[in-house]
Amino acid sequence: MSKYGVLAEEKVFKDPVHRYIHVRDELIWELIGTKEFQRLRRIRQLGTTYVTFHGAEHTRFNHSLGVYEITRRMVEEFTGRPDWNDEERLLVLTAALLHDIGHGPFSHSFEKVFDTDHEEWTRSIILGDTEINDVLSQVRPQFPKDVADVIEKTYSNKLVTSMISSQIDADRMDYLQRDAYYTGVSYGHFDMERILRVMRPKEDQVVIKNSGMHAVEDYIMSRYQMYWQVYFHPVTRSAEVILSKILMRAKDLYEQGYSFMQEPKHFYSIFKGKASLDDYLRLDEAIVLYYFQVWQEEEDRILRDLCVRFLNRRLFKYIEFNPNDRMDDWLVLHDLFKQADLQPDYYLVLDSSSDLPYDFYRPGEEEERVPIHLLMPNGRLRELSRQSDVVEAISGKKRTDHKLYVPLDRLEDEEEYGEVKRKIRKILDI
Amino acid sequence: MSKYGVLAEEKVFKDPVHRYIHVRDELIWELIGTKEFQRLRRIRQLGTTYVTFHGAEHTRFNHSLGVYEITRRMVEEFTGRPDWNDEERLLVLTAALLHDIGHGPFSHSFEKVFDTDHEEWTRSIILGDTEINDVLSQVRPQFPKDVADVIEKTYSNKLVTSMISSQIDADRMDYLQRDAYYTGVSYGHFDMERILRVMRPKEDQVVIKNSGMHAVEDYIMSRYQMYWQVYFHPVTRSAEVILSKILMRAKDLYEQGYSFMQEPKHFYSIFKGKASLDDYLRLDEAIVLYYFQVWQEEEDRILRDLCVRFLNRRLFKYIEFNPNDRMDDWLVLHDLFKQADLQPDYYLVLDSSSDLPYDFYRPGEEEERVPIHLLMPNGRLRELSRQSDVVEAISGKKRTDHKLYVPLDRLEDEEEYGEVKRKIRKILDI
Amino acid sequence: MSKYGVLAEEKVFKDPVHRYIHVRDELIWELIGTKEFQRLRRIRQLGTTYVTFHGAEHTRFNHSLGVYEITRRMVEEFTGRPDWNDEERLLVLTAALLHDIGHGPFSHSFEKVFDTDHEEWTRSIILGDTEINDVLSQVRPQFPKDVADVIEKTYSNKLVTSMISSQIDADRMDYLQRDAYYTGVSYGHFDMERILRVMRPKEDQVVIKNSGMHAVEDYIMSRYQMYWQVYFHPVTRSAEVILSKILMRAKDLYEQGYSFMQEPKHFYSIFKGKASLDDYLRLDEAIVLYYFQVWQEEEDRILRDLCVRFLNRRLFKYIEFNPNDRMDDWLVLHDLFKQADLQPDYYLVLDSSSDLPYDFYRPGEEEERVPIHLLMPNGRLRELSRQSDVVEAISGKKRTDHKLYVPLDRLEDEEEYGEVKRKIRKILDI
Amino acid sequence: MSKYGVLAEEKVFKDPVHRYIHVRDELIWELIGTKEFQRLRRIRQLGTTYVTFHGAEHTRFNHSLGVYEITRRMVEEFTGRPDWNDEERLLVLTAALLHDIGHGPFSHSFEKVFDTDHEEWTRSIILGDTEINDVLSQVRPQFPKDVADVIEKTYSNKLVTSMISSQIDADRMDYLQRDAYYTGVSYGHFDMERILRVMRPKEDQVVIKNSGMHAVEDYIMSRYQMYWQVYFHPVTRSAEVILSKILMRAKDLYEQGYSFMQEPKHFYSIFKGKASLDDYLRLDEAIVLYYFQVWQEEEDRILRDLCVRFLNRRLFKYIEFNPNDRMDDWLVLHDLFKQADLQPDYYLVLDSSSDLPYDFYRPGEEEERVPIHLLMPNGRLRELSRQSDVVEAISGKKRTDHKLYVPLDRLEDEEEYGEVKRKIRKILDI
Repeated sequence: MSKYGVLAEEKVFKDPVHRYIHVRDELIWELIGTKEFQRLRRIRQLGTTYVTFHGAEHTRFNHSLGVYEITRRMVEEFTGRPDWNDEERLLVLTAALLHDIGHGPFSHSFEKVFDTDHEEWTRSIILGDTEINDVLSQVRPQFPKDVADVIEKTYSNKLVTSMISSQIDADRMDYLQRDAYYTGVSYGHFDMERILRVMRPKEDQVVIKNSGMHAVEDYIMSRYQMYWQVYFHPVTRSAEVILSKILMRAKDLYEQGYSFMQEPKHFYSIFKGKASLDDYLRLDEAIVLYYFQVWQEEEDRILRDLCVRFLNRRLFKYIEFNPNDRMDDWLVLHDLFKQADLQPDYYLVLDSSSDLPYDFYRPGEEEERVPIHLLMPNGRLRELSRQSDVVEAISGKKRTDHKLYVPLDRLEDEEEYGEVKRKIRKILDI
Repeated sequence: MSKYGVLAEEKVFKDPVHRYIHVRDELIWELIGTKEFQRLRRIRQLGTTYVTFHGAEHTRFNHSLGVYEITRRMVEEFTGRPDWNDEERLLVLTAALLHDIGHGPFSHSFEKVFDTDHEEWTRSIILGDTEINDVLSQVRPQFPKDVADVIEKTYSNKLVTSMISSQIDADRMDYLQRDAYYTGVSYGHFDMERILRVMRPKEDQVVIKNSGMHAVEDYIMSRYQMYWQVYFHPVTRSAEVILSKILMRAKDLYEQGYSFMQEPKHFYSIFKGKASLDDYLRLDEAIVLYYFQVWQEEEDRILRDLCVRFLNRRLFKYIEFNPNDRMDDWLVLHDLFKQADLQPDYYLVLDSSSDLPYDFYRPGEEEERVPIHLLMPNGRLRELSRQSDVVEAISGKKRTDHKLYVPLDRLEDEEEYGEVKRKIRKILDI
Repeated sequence: MSKYGVLAEEKVFKDPVHRYIHVRDELIWELIGTKEFQRLRRIRQLGTTYVTFHGAEHTRFNHSLGVYEITRRMVEEFTGRPDWNDEERLLVLTAALLHDIGHGPFSHSFEKVFDTDHEEWTRSIILGDTEINDVLSQVRPQFPKDVADVIEKTYSNKLVTSMISSQIDADRMDYLQRDAYYTGVSYGHFDMERILRVMRPKEDQVVIKNSGMHAVEDYIMSRYQMYWQVYFHPVTRSAEVILSKILMRAKDLYEQGYSFMQEPKHFYSIFKGKASLDDYLRLDEAIVLYYFQVWQEEEDRILRDLCVRFLNRRLFKYIEFNPNDRMDDWLVLHDLFKQADLQPDYYLVLDSSSDLPYDFYRPGEEEERVPIHLLMPNGRLRELSRQSDVVEAISGKKRTDHKLYVPLDRLEDEEEYGEVKRKIRKILDI
Repeated sequence: MSKYGVLAEEKVFKDPVHRYIHVRDELIWELIGTKEFQRLRRIRQLGTTYVTFHGAEHTRFNHSLGVYEITRRMVEEFTGRPDWNDEERLLVLTAALLHDIGHGPFSHSFEKVFDTDHEEWTRSIILGDTEINDVLSQVRPQFPKDVADVIEKTYSNKLVTSMISSQIDADRMDYLQRDAYYTGVSYGHFDMERILRVMRPKEDQVVIKNSGMHAVEDYIMSRYQMYWQVYFHPVTRSAEVILSKILMRAKDLYEQGYSFMQEPKHFYSIFKGKASLDDYLRLDEAIVLYYFQVWQEEEDRILRDLCVRFLNRRLFKYIEFNPNDRMDDWLVLHDLFKQADLQPDYYLVLDSSSDLPYDFYRPGEEEERVPIHLLMPNGRLRELSRQSDVVEAISGKKRTDHKLYVPLDRLEDEEEYGEVKRKIRKILDI
């Protein structure tokens, strides 16, 4: 039997996006108070985006509360409707709150460089020896497992998983609005209140009444605009490139047995690919930025330089460059960078938007991307892009965009290797 | 002769509060790029407020750009008016941008515990061996000194200083709006566009046309509400109390020769009161939070406990308690805390709002608080509170509010010293 | 037994102020569809304010829906609390919706000139032979009477009346926000969501939990600003002066037996003080503006001139003028206006803000002004202005403001009576 | 030589959409004060839309000021750029302000029923014997003609005309935002400030820097959503259907020599197709609504019924019905309506969205629809839909949507012709 009931008095958090976040369940309140959840305050929602949009300093703590709140409102709308089982209420609220609990600092770069996976950490945090697991286990022994399953989309009731993981779920609806609010861009707005009113539980998914199609179109377009204007912004990617290269360099140095002035103790186990749950939970952005700062004074020239660049926003310049069309140039550049004493592994970086972990609407492309279904007046379902010209237009289009990132300041400094650098600049037309 | 001109193309920053921040001057662009200015990205604008209002994660970098932007618009309005000397334009813009450059992490607590002063650091950064000084010196040799003087309000042209330091200056107008935006509270809004339109340079101050009095009333009321609702919030103060106590404890331990598992190298010189400019500039919130995290595993019980509390938001409870009226209780409590093995220096903390570094409108109270003057139709000036009932009502009222902060969890844990703790709780009525 | 139940599907109205207005009760839906309620679409909420703030073209239809919606949310908050009787739900919702049903076009001027009273008309519409009465009677025979009593504040359950008629009721909360939205002023905003959360039914009134005091202060300040910035705006009052004078002139001419080119049939009974309910309900702003337009071509010089002025916004100029201090000037002016062939009854108009039908917070001044009570932690009530400095400061202050309205264009046209007009202008200093 | 200069003090209008509208030119100020311009206060911007979205009560006066303001900001951006001739400044501002001056009440219906054309009236008002012409002529004799030419797009400098008449002009940018604001829908927002910053005068058109493409996409999508959600809303069209039928019926009755109880004097000349400029200018919505109200008591059953329906919002029901596919049903229905004594000319109305005067983006379809060109980095121009997938997707798609409007209440009242009506309802499936 659950030891949790209802709070004597509802608690609220003031939230700029949803006005207030309402908590009535003791369980939710307890979870928010765990140290693993509080840790999300030290991990920014949008990684390096703040270097482009200075307002984007909000954290995953913010976003997690927002996803919970939207899910709470969904449940309120669903209560009493056929196909909705109210016994799933606490489960879906908990999964909503914890869906990002496994994220670490600058997750995207960390995952790429160290080959970790925030989804596995999520599972470990929920099932492992943590305060969160302590709280969850007191609902019922099976509860932590169910929460993990919902987040991993393996839970039996697909309706429940689709509330937080589908093309129009609480997660996406929160982050679009929240990221728009904090960056200050004029995209990212849509009529969530209307969408919540036209959502219907329908067998194993959440569907949208056809009368709400335009609100959903607007939401899809908001996503589209947010991806191109915010999430794929080349300046943000430039900062991310540098960040990844710092991590790579530190790992390389460690593996080479380099003697650090400031030993990266927090990184050792992750360098070795053997981070324990405790090791992982100790990592947050303060820790990472601490090392970046002290490494500004390391002896290794590359590590030092990259850290100075990252902290002081001396980013790499970006140039459109499709390696498929320009393989020869690419090889020549690689060579020239070496000649100019600019290690190409760190200073000549190719980055493609299709590597990025965001997608706009692509029905059916990957198994887990459940498409959006409209509930037609005749009771049938119809996939959104078949009904909407606008959505059809942008669906499944993979607009890969290749960019090359290089340190322009170094290439323009002709004190050394002037001729080589002039050649490089000529090829790159900069 | 200045080496700086006008940018080939205007640069803009997307800003949620002012929509866009416009930069046309090379000088401003160069200053933003210095490492001392970029460091402001790692210092939150509202210190510990984020534990109360989770949206308040914005930094001093944001705010500094905002103050610059408002000042830029003021200058635009003033251009061509009598009493405005357009040669002061770059000076006031620079001072606006740099007015908070000396702030460190959690400034208020640092200043109290270590007896430093961010205003002195501002001066040092502007006049010392920094990238900022390099940039400023190239305008003209005297320029850094002038900028520092404007910020310190000792500059000869008081009109210029009042644009960024007066009861209705660009600084306050930015932070009220910005802090309201990020916290999400409904206060903090006023019609800045109207205020800018009714501001007039008038001899040595900025005055307000009488027709704009109501807009100014509204601004003063916004301040009033923001102070009581946001800036003096007891939960924020509770977090600040703990933060101050951590710093105090670490310093005490250092002075006692305690052997830290993780040596606080970044703090040594500041513990000794001998921090160099470089030492100071190395401090940012990442560094502080790094130590707080590692100190969670220190041997010293108090330091460890306080760090755990701060990071995991296990704050002290607050109780109204005016020591002037309850001196006897205070002494008894002090004693009881000792008996209960709760060091009263760290666990029984009295905090008064009047200690806080904010003021609402108090004309004439301190020398530097230049009151707001209305420009009457007859050309005379009239101090605002003489014209406005509302402002008069709240002027000069020092609503000191005394609170006691204690660790309720410890007082309720009766495993040890149960009887003493019951006595304490009885006195405090908790 | 009521013939009304719950709608098969909730209806919503898109509303810019409250996002959506939700209707679930058949009764409410039927009432909105009556012709008397639809007539409110042809009566602007703010009378002549649109000549000053061009956005203020919204109607009483809008506002009535808004008051209903806020009351609906209040009831939602009250449901289940002690002192709230859920059987009053439909009654209070109905009274909220219909509280302004008796308003006619430009009510304030009509009431002054023709000595009518919109509150009496409200009663007549609810109890008389109308579609609204038809609908209400089918709830239960006594229902129309109860609705009228709630609106007139004579209903036995004062808690119910206070929800729509008190210092912080649904009526005021809607119009402040709505009028701010449509005029575009930056005042008028307050945190209604918070106020609704801290409202408590308490015996015979709605009280506010003390923890919400600042939100209420903010609301009171919004009112204060809206009155001085919007409701008492002298340009609006100038238009209202002219409108009243048109009505007065038409009535005078009618009583003198003047032969109108365009007979004011719609006005006959009202001129005689004998308007029937049907006569009254036929009046709306289209009817009034129709006559004003055709009267622009009347023979009577004064009626014609005033109508041209009203429609084409050729308003009177306003001058501060306190007749108590300047009785002699007043008498001289009166005489000079006659000499200049400017009928002083129409062209020399004194108007005082205290005549206006708005009040900000004045506890206890008039019987029906129930003050706002705070619910203190100890369970006692405390009148707001005793707890809040700010409210205390503006309470009960009757800032009467006297203005004289004159046709400046005519006074400056010296073709005729030049010398007299120069004298007038000298006295008035214009 | 112009008699107009610059105002001693800038005038501002508070505007909810653009915050403030700034007037510095005496000419603009004088034009706003003319009676023809003030008349726009009595003509709603969105005709019958207010029956669907109750907030949509704003007038063409509002919108005209808004278009002027946006144009003013455009000019500010263009000043000093190549291809911009600052001598056109006053001309384009004036044309912006007056571009809708020829609109009458419910223009769309009037034009359809009486075969008039608001563009011709615009020309007449500008060139005829009006206060506006008086003001304009004092700039220079040719000025009124130039203004009319700009509005009619026949002016020689196409850059000037394109500022107020193109796919992304001041007119559209104002109405999208304004209509969104007043209806309260969440569409209609886009980043106008950004668009203004990327607009460039380029030979004979205004082009958009390619870097601003996404902002333009967002604007096009806003248009698309506004058209389907607001402008083409079937409830609005139902009200418009009834309004048109009232006008048709009154005209028919007049032509048949019917004796009106309330003679429609204001309509005589327009019924005859011989309205003079003065006749036309007398028409406004108050006049129209006056007649609709008095006609509610006419003897003619059809006119009476339609007027009651319009004023009391007893609209026709709409049913999807494509006559191309269902010609037989159409003929049968026509016959059945006659049998049921429901005159099909008035009670069986087919309406297609493609009849409506709005278009979203259709480059090149009609001569005057100048497409949007992007200015590429290489200095070339590129038509928007060739660069943007999203715009391409919705370009030129004419989504005609056919609806049938019928009085459901009458069809359900089986007191008379019950069998016929059942047949009708069966065919229509209602």
